Amino acid sequence: METNPCNKPINGGSSIPSRVSRKTKPDATIVNINGVKVGGSDIVVIAGPCAVESREQLFETARSVKESGANILRGGAFKPRSSPYNFQGLGEDGLKLLGIIREETGLPIVTEVMDTRQVELVASYADMIQIGSRNMQNYPLLKEAGMCRKPILLKRGMMATIEEYLMAAEYILNQGNGQVILCERGIRTFETSTRNTLDLSAIPMLKRLSHLPVIVDPSHGTGLRWMVPAMAKAAVAVGADGLIMEVHYKPEAALCDGHQSLSLDEFAQLMADLKKIASAVGREISSLKPSHA
Amino acid sequence: METNPCNKPINGGSSIPSRVSRKTKPDATIVNINGVKVGGSDIVVIAGPCAVESREQLFETARSVKESGANILRGGAFKPRSSPYNFQGLGEDGLKLLGIIREETGLPIVTEVMDTRQVELVASYADMIQIGSRNMQNYPLLKEAGMCRKPILLKRGMMATIEEYLMAAEYILNQGNGQVILCERGIRTFETSTRNTLDLSAIPMLKRLSHLPVIVDPSHGTGLRWMVPAMAKAAVAVGADGLIMEVHYKPEAALCDGHQSLSLDEFAQLMADLKKIASAVGREISSLKPSHA
Amino acid sequence: METNPCNKPINGGSSIPSRVSRKTKPDATIVNINGVKVGGSDIVVIAGPCAVESREQLFETARSVKESGANILRGGAFKPRSSPYNFQGLGEDGLKLLGIIREETGLPIVTEVMDTRQVELVASYADMIQIGSRNMQNYPLLKEAGMCRKPILLKRGMMATIEEYLMAAEYILNQGNGQVILCERGIRTFETSTRNTLDLSAIPMLKRLSHLPVIVDPSHGTGLRWMVPAMAKAAVAVGADGLIMEVHYKPEAALCDGHQSLSLDEFAQLMADLKKIASAVGREISSLKPSHA
Amino acid sequence: METNPCNKPINGGSSIPSRVSRKTKPDATIVNINGVKVGGSDIVVIAGPCAVESREQLFETARSVKESGANILRGGAFKPRSSPYNFQGLGEDGLKLLGIIREETGLPIVTEVMDTRQVELVASYADMIQIGSRNMQNYPLLKEAGMCRKPILLKRGMMATIEEYLMAAEYILNQGNGQVILCERGIRTFETSTRNTLDLSAIPMLKRLSHLPVIVDPSHGTGLRWMVPAMAKAAVAVGADGLIMEVHYKPEAALCDGHQSLSLDEFAQLMADLKKIASAVGREISSLKPSHA
Repeated sequence: METNPCNKPINGGSSIPSRVSRKTKPDATIVNINGVKVGGSDIVVIAGPCAVESREQLFETARSVKESGANILRGGAFKPRSSPYNFQGLGEDGLKLLGIIREETGLPIVTEVMDTRQVELVASYADMIQIGSRNMQNYPLLKEAGMCRKPILLKRGMMATIEEYLMAAEYILNQGNGQVILCERGIRTFETSTRNTLDLSAIPMLKRLSHLPVIVDPSHGTGLRWMVPAMAKAAVAVGADGLIMEVHYKPEAALCDGHQSLSLDEFAQLMADLKKIASAVGREISSLKPSHA
Repeated sequence: METNPCNKPINGGSSIPSRVSRKTKPDATIVNINGVKVGGSDIVVIAGPCAVESREQLFETARSVKESGANILRGGAFKPRSSPYNFQGLGEDGLKLLGIIREETGLPIVTEVMDTRQVELVASYADMIQIGSRNMQNYPLLKEAGMCRKPILLKRGMMATIEEYLMAAEYILNQGNGQVILCERGIRTFETSTRNTLDLSAIPMLKRLSHLPVIVDPSHGTGLRWMVPAMAKAAVAVGADGLIMEVHYKPEAALCDGHQSLSLDEFAQLMADLKKIASAVGREISSLKPSHA
Repeated sequence: METNPCNKPINGGSSIPSRVSRKTKPDATIVNINGVKVGGSDIVVIAGPCAVESREQLFETARSVKESGANILRGGAFKPRSSPYNFQGLGEDGLKLLGIIREETGLPIVTEVMDTRQVELVASYADMIQIGSRNMQNYPLLKEAGMCRKPILLKRGMMATIEEYLMAAEYILNQGNGQVILCERGIRTFETSTRNTLDLSAIPMLKRLSHLPVIVDPSHGTGLRWMVPAMAKAAVAVGADGLIMEVHYKPEAALCDGHQSLSLDEFAQLMADLKKIASAVGREISSLKPSHA
Repeated sequence: METNPCNKPINGGSSIPSRVSRKTKPDATIVNINGVKVGGSDIVVIAGPCAVESREQLFETARSVKESGANILRGGAFKPRSSPYNFQGLGEDGLKLLGIIREETGLPIVTEVMDTRQVELVASYADMIQIGSRNMQNYPLLKEAGMCRKPILLKRGMMATIEEYLMAAEYILNQGNGQVILCERGIRTFETSTRNTLDLSAIPMLKRLSHLPVIVDPSHGTGLRWMVPAMAKAAVAVGADGLIMEVHYKPEAALCDGHQSLSLDEFAQLMADLKKIASAVGREISSLKPSHA
């Protein structure tokens, strides 16, 4: 039968591109985000609101997640929204707010970039640049990220195979930037009771094939606030190097993704529970202090 | 837009059928398999070969998994195989071997039934009857299982929604048999690096919607021996009530599913690791002794 | 990379089982349903209600679809329904009604069997036996159908690959029954605006790999009455050997699948339109008179 | 049950954004590509190589597809490739070649843009700008396309729902550019025998929900040269306003997608066959002469 050559599955590792491959570099890559190290024995937690909405919203959330033990602050200034009529983010004003709270808390910042023309701007504020799921195969953006000297958080596309995902990371490494963190955030399946299907098997698979650190986003992976803690615990048990979660000081009033954002108290409780799971797999939730603090 | 009414997602629980619903019965159902209780605080482990192949294969595997702490023995006598030319199982001879080793080890037996005409026969040997993924919507078989007085292990279809899965369980309960265990075993997605995509979010979802116990099959869920331990740990962390895993005394020589079967040593090691995860979530790997022992 | 051997795609035809393969038998198989031939140059249309509901409903629908040019009558007596509380079909009473209207109209009958114990009964009334999507991998049922001397309409499972589908047909041929018709009826995908995604590429693929005739079910494939005509035309254009469609004399009052059933007038109009497409691809809508007529 | 609000299916049309909706604008939009009109009664055929590789390759292919009746020439200068080590396109040199052959043949040109920074450049050469599947939710690019005064060919993402797809088109219309053509090019499913699953039901669905023209890409939709003609015929039968197909003067030597490219002779034969199908649905293959000619 003449099957499409595009569908050949990865076998023998021959189709795993070389720079991301563990065969090329057996040792795990440690990504250093302004002093916070991802990919070593400690498990790193990134937390914060989906979008930066206001000074109060960002600052109250940031102070609280730091208090609960988060290592890095997340918050979107440029938001990829399905509808043009949804809140699109505060833009550079959001970046400025992120810069202020970084000074106060010492937490490194990760925020998303969507446009090749904005990479330089975003990199001037952020400690790590996120490339979102919808842009996982935005090759010009990947190349631009590869030429930037900041660590990159590359989220898996919701329709991307493991092989395509590693190919996308290869675009960044191929430009000379080896500080890349992978992030499983749910794939699209037929199941509709959750927003996406969080593919936790991707974590051992990616770590076997590649030397890059792998974290998990249970917020987008489930789309359900009440389910985030269970999936976060599973992510640590399965071997993830960290978590990225949406936390909001008033989830019910959030302009974006409130239904999947943890409250401040829920996050604090979860951090305590995660410590036990981390210990059970011989790791610990990072207590590294970022260099600013 | 006139969208198909068949696609309405579950909302407000109104479409969750009544007998399986936690709204109807808030307390968790405990399924009692000849003395081994599933659905309580203890986590139960079911282990054994994919198919019963021979006296030596079954007995050596059974003795070893018991020694490592398994609570229930699995083994297929009637095998659903994609090709008619693959090994189809030993049939009643396999059931007889299962009966003998049950007497020796005291381990309760779970084995699959595929045909309405065989339910009575299988029930005469087994302590729990398995309905496999391919038969999740075999309604005559579900009804027959519902009229049987043995506990039923109902595996999720590889493309069944949560709602369809609970509907299938409702068929069994509706015939008067409330001793049903649900089992997530991987769903079919676009990803090809694993055999299926193990949907661990199904566990908290099913436990929220239904009072029935839920276990996980990481062997079929991944199809990869080396990945089974990581996913088994994640399953315990996420809140599963138990695990069902393929173990073979000589995986490389197995007639069926050898690539996803743990060796005896791998299983023993995994059991030790699982104890730590169970403890971290406030549970323990069951040490209940079955009544035969 | 150690990928699961279960995921190897079909290549070189080596995994296409031998009895269904066109390599083994280059000439197209013609299935003869009591005088109506499927798989030759004529395109055959099977029409009728989802379920037999009453004498009036069945007879009025049957007379009308015959008048419009349908070649075979469909109607379910045993219905596979997702919920145990939905209408389950009239059982043998439904079969009897089908037998009566066959005598009157001369139209051969196709109806579904779900249980190995019912094959003999259903075969005593039907001219062709349908095995539905949910039972495509119900191997005992496939074997029983293979021992039966009636043509079999085997519908593709909603989650079945082309290879698995051909393997299922092989089970029937392997028992000595070569009179098998394949039927694409929609696969399950992430898209929710239609009930299923009708995979029309399956028709040229199946016809290339196998000598068996292939028909299309646009009713289940779309779940939307208004979309059935467009997809039926596409099915003829793509090379299908026939169509099976749900038609009801009062769709809005149907006990089952009314939202996807054509009215009598819609069906009559569609038959006229299909003649033009058939002619454009060098075929014609069958005008063979069944032997009873 | 608390289901994710993100998963609400489109119902009653309330979630279809206003500018693309047929409720807002009942009359079909006609997109005018330098004199070639898409969305009226004529069916338009776009043909050409996947990528512009050389003067000889482009020119010989262009002359031949024009001779066979193609209305518009396609050819990629900037190529989105899964691997950074694959041929990435000739860039502006490719655009220049497209400009030269446009002058000679009079065929309007469609070519892809991947980067917001290149929209102006590409628009200076192209008569229509393509936004590819991987960029369907690249919102900055959609906005930039919306500010451009050239028609836009927006391909459906390989895992985009109908609703998400229309939302993406809305981004373009919302910037003031209403000259948008939609294109079904296959979605990602579990089936691996074809490169993608061409979702022909999307054509009647999109045309019912929106006033925008809809075309089909059977080359990417199947990934198999031999299957392209059958699916092209089905696309015309189902109601598509046009086709876009890969044609190469030497498919076996193509740098990109040769396995799915028609040869010049195959394309000529297909055009003859398509005329018959078009006629059977009351349309015709466009014979409009572009304004340059």
